[in-house]
Amino acid sequence: MKVICSKDSLLRAINTVSRAVPVRTTLDILKCILLQAEENELKLTANDTALGIETRIEAVVEEPGMTAIDAGLFSSIARKLPDADVMIASDRQEAIDIRCENALFHISGRGADDFIYLPTVETGESIVISQFTIREMIGQVIFSAADSETSGAMSGVYLEVLGGKIRMTALDGHRIAIRVNELRDLADQVSAIVPAKTLSDLQKIVSGDLEKDIRISFSRNHIIFEYDKTRMVSRVIDGEYFKVESMIRDIHETHLRINKKDLLNCLDRSTLLVNESDKKPVVMNITEEEMNLRLKSAIGSMDEMIPIEKEGKDIKIAFNPKLLMDALRVIDDELIDIYMVKYNYPCIIRDDQGSYIYVVLPVNFIED
Amino acid sequence: MKVICSKDSLLRAINTVSRAVPVRTTLDILKCILLQAEENELKLTANDTALGIETRIEAVVEEPGMTAIDAGLFSSIARKLPDADVMIASDRQEAIDIRCENALFHISGRGADDFIYLPTVETGESIVISQFTIREMIGQVIFSAADSETSGAMSGVYLEVLGGKIRMTALDGHRIAIRVNELRDLADQVSAIVPAKTLSDLQKIVSGDLEKDIRISFSRNHIIFEYDKTRMVSRVIDGEYFKVESMIRDIHETHLRINKKDLLNCLDRSTLLVNESDKKPVVMNITEEEMNLRLKSAIGSMDEMIPIEKEGKDIKIAFNPKLLMDALRVIDDELIDIYMVKYNYPCIIRDDQGSYIYVVLPVNFIED
Repeated sequence: MKVICSKDSLLRAINTVSRAVPVRTTLDILKCILLQAEENELKLTANDTALGIETRIEAVVEEPGMTAIDAGLFSSIARKLPDADVMIASDRQEAIDIRCENALFHISGRGADDFIYLPTVETGESIVISQFTIREMIGQVIFSAADSETSGAMSGVYLEVLGGKIRMTALDGHRIAIRVNELRDLADQVSAIVPAKTLSDLQKIVSGDLEKDIRISFSRNHIIFEYDKTRMVSRVIDGEYFKVESMIRDIHETHLRINKKDLLNCLDRSTLLVNESDKKPVVMNITEEEMNLRLKSAIGSMDEMIPIEKEGKDIKIAFNPKLLMDALRVIDDELIDIYMVKYNYPCIIRDDQGSYIYVVLPVNFIED
Repeated sequence: MKVICSKDSLLRAINTVSRAVPVRTTLDILKCILLQAEENELKLTANDTALGIETRIEAVVEEPGMTAIDAGLFSSIARKLPDADVMIASDRQEAIDIRCENALFHISGRGADDFIYLPTVETGESIVISQFTIREMIGQVIFSAADSETSGAMSGVYLEVLGGKIRMTALDGHRIAIRVNELRDLADQVSAIVPAKTLSDLQKIVSGDLEKDIRISFSRNHIIFEYDKTRMVSRVIDGEYFKVESMIRDIHETHLRINKKDLLNCLDRSTLLVNESDKKPVVMNITEEEMNLRLKSAIGSMDEMIPIEKEGKDIKIAFNPKLLMDALRVIDDELIDIYMVKYNYPCIIRDDQGSYIYVVLPVNFIED
């Protein structure tokens, strides 16, 4: 193989596919990026067997062929090369030369035969949305998915296409995040539980450009994201997702409207007094025209008042401040509506248009 | 004590004195900042017994007094307060109230009696230079001081005032860094070995403003830095500093001129192949009009050519690339002059004006 491409596009392609290189693995070939040179293109592929990414860049192919190269080393070399054309050549012994201006690197590659190729997937339904929208939606729900990859459906984000809309749902047993966006075209009803890691990787590599599209295709065991010259194939999580409808029914007894920034900043301050080993909740005392927030811990106490508009009953309720903050951070509205039922019922933050719903479970607290 | 000041100036003052709060200590009082309110000023002091910093800010003193407060907690509270006036009040039981707009924090302080005050130092000679100059000089030599604080004089920077000049020297057994600047006024000859940590702290808190001055005063056991409303008192390291003159004598056999950026980038690339457990050197082969650099390790090899201007003998010599890079990074010149004697003699990078001298020891290498 002998191929010449620009350093800039090579580096971008390495960064893109490197998302599918596992951080830890005992299988050396998984640490590699597969290079395939043919027909004026260099194709880069990485695959950790749950997620595979391939991307293509323009190149002058002097000799078609393929080789596999350690992703970490390749990435650091590419990053430090001068901004110029890069020549990559490999021989039958998998010795690889990387030349750029006066610099020549000589490293060992690996046979491409070991490489685990992306699965061939027969796709069914597909939709197209802007890269901006997918990136934004992911950021707005992903923090609510369970951290651990062993939590089954909870470690995924439920992606649904229904009635001309795309909806993402994430939950971890303490909270639920839901975001809905309109689709440009009608599409058949389809859904998948996508590993949160896949969406987090996607979020980091799509441009976020409003003018650029991404195609999402569904199959039985996989979901495929295609944009620009990149293709991402991810396994989906097996099984049924949770029925969240009963949790987001509107049965509130208290409705309040509050300045989002005021509430967020106050919660942020309250976390200063939260000790990792003894997580005290923030207690909200909601009366006619104000919300009083208190947090008392071994470190000290804080007390703050925020003006609100309220309809319905007074209520005293306590939360883990971090869970509320996560939701508030991704809401753009200046004023938000919060709906509550009782001190031991989940509270719901939602807008009237139904574009977002955040549910947070309260915690127990001791009256002082 | 009851005092009102702006959040902004309070936060800046906390950041300044926090440099003298030890990261780890068994003595709780050392983790505290002493607050003293009197005569329209709030004075903040921290002291880790080797280094003490005090700074004063404008304040409305409603009740003079003093208290000590945990530096970490105080800093995080101040950081998260709204941008407004902050009221700090303490009572005889050392209960502290911090109020800002609608937020009220209530935390425990400590008695000021335990606090270890800054030493009273009788100063002798002193000089004045711009905050810009001191900050720049520190950055240009400090990386050459030994990391460990147990290395005696090597863990300090030698600061000398002589003949209308200020000179800083740092060395760690593998290299020497020297910087010289003119003083505005003549000053008496004086010198001190200043702990590198003190200078590193100073570098982080002075403004770096060309128009603003700093006064440096010397005493038997201390050095004092005074600027704006801040005073920093540091112990100096006892003993004699190393005689470096013999190491920087000009006895070169090879003189070369090279583009600094080209050399720096090439050395940076070579480090990609350096394994932490097996530090291979970069071998320079300097011939008539070019420098060939090679590094060969278990990871791979690299080979690069940089054009040079040369006088004197050809030479083959090897270095730890990192040591050369550290020096090159703080030299502003586009072209630099390097002087060499033999493969086992230190190489010297210096300018004609004598404003900088960097000495780097070569390492052994195996001919291939």
